[in-house]
Amino acid sequence: MTTDHPLSPDELEAALRAMGAERYHILHPFHRKLHSGGLNRGQVQAWALNRYYYQCRIPAKDATLLARLPTTDLRRAWRSRLEDHDGVEGKIGGVERWLKLCEGVGLDRDYVASTEGLLPGTRFAVDAYVALVRDRSILEGIASSLTELFSPTIIAERVSGMLRHYDFVTEETLAYFTPRLTQAPKDSDFALAYVRENARTVEEQQAALRALRTKCDILWAQLDALHFAYVEPGLIPPGAFVPDDRK
Amino acid sequence: MTTDHPLSPDELEAALRAMGAERYHILHPFHRKLHSGGLNRGQVQAWALNRYYYQCRIPAKDATLLARLPTTDLRRAWRSRLEDHDGVEGKIGGVERWLKLCEGVGLDRDYVASTEGLLPGTRFAVDAYVALVRDRSILEGIASSLTELFSPTIIAERVSGMLRHYDFVTEETLAYFTPRLTQAPKDSDFALAYVRENARTVEEQQAALRALRTKCDILWAQLDALHFAYVEPGLIPPGAFVPDDRK
Repeated sequence: MTTDHPLSPDELEAALRAMGAERYHILHPFHRKLHSGGLNRGQVQAWALNRYYYQCRIPAKDATLLARLPTTDLRRAWRSRLEDHDGVEGKIGGVERWLKLCEGVGLDRDYVASTEGLLPGTRFAVDAYVALVRDRSILEGIASSLTELFSPTIIAERVSGMLRHYDFVTEETLAYFTPRLTQAPKDSDFALAYVRENARTVEEQQAALRALRTKCDILWAQLDALHFAYVEPGLIPPGAFVPDDRK
Repeated sequence: MTTDHPLSPDELEAALRAMGAERYHILHPFHRKLHSGGLNRGQVQAWALNRYYYQCRIPAKDATLLARLPTTDLRRAWRSRLEDHDGVEGKIGGVERWLKLCEGVGLDRDYVASTEGLLPGTRFAVDAYVALVRDRSILEGIASSLTELFSPTIIAERVSGMLRHYDFVTEETLAYFTPRLTQAPKDSDFALAYVRENARTVEEQQAALRALRTKCDILWAQLDALHFAYVEPGLIPPGAFVPDDRK
């Protein structure tokens, strides 16, 4: 991937997309099990409960980055993410919709929101995302969001597969995902244009690619932790959520 | 664990020790496999390589905390940890000794030091340790080091078990651990006295216990990631170290 001269914007975009093709968590065995009906209700609950922590830290991630953006235009563009996740007057946002998803699969809302039953691996991976946008360059913070380039595909697989295979999952339960199919492309269009425009030098382009790689690792590590604790070998760490059928 | 009135120093110490009895990674199946000869050379290499990242971030953790300590006496006491890990004139420290352990089990020193082959789960867990001593109270930072109360036992198991079971492991390879048997108790004596003295209110005592719990989680999550990638189910994440027998 390292070159002596900068890539053109199109070449850079191709390299970013290639990173996703290689490392996005759509390739993870836990995702394949989830959408193909290979999990039981307790395992789906574990996924929903752990993924909640990712959802509820996304506004912290976006606000951390927003605080560092230098212009009104950039901050206004980024602010729409906060609206998507925390809602606007009269309309709930993604965090609340994820809690409804958790309730829909039979979890207690307050228990989920307490994050008490979280896998430590989930917490560390998600916290690494907030740290990335705080500690690395703005370009890297924005580039790390580019996994949204790949999310419509994984959402489509997940929603259709889960509705087909799990009788405890309804369309209403999965309502979280519907707006994401338009929000994610809006966000990734903006972020991709920013990265194409602002990653000019070899160093900047490498940094942007590394940031996207780290983000892919963050998503991947969350599924590793789930798979390890709840699928194979199925070793639930002390204090983490125990599904009913494992009690 | 929650009480209305503060614990006595002895009761607090007992609660801290009980936390270790329940959550210290000596209970993790990966540790049991490591010391009982249940791993092959590639799996031991994966352990050494990943654990290197923990070792090499310990001075960053200690310097981060040292920077926040308010008195010369506290800083001088804490400084000895930097000497233990980074060495003093004419004497190498723990980080360098760990690199020798890695070479001893057949890894390339530069590859280990590059941390290129690290499991993302290792990186996120270890970084969470540095973040803890930066972001929480000094009391919590010091309490999080108290896993050293339990380390002489795990070191004894590990060294004797590894020497007995692995013909590719020599006493020289495990030389890292010898000074730790005296350093860890020296450090944990100091930290325990500090916590006994300074965790007076219910809130402070709960915070100290939570910090030790988080640290146990950090150690546990590292073994989860190793077990998942290299033992069962054996799914090595993209880009991570691949042992010769898995190539």
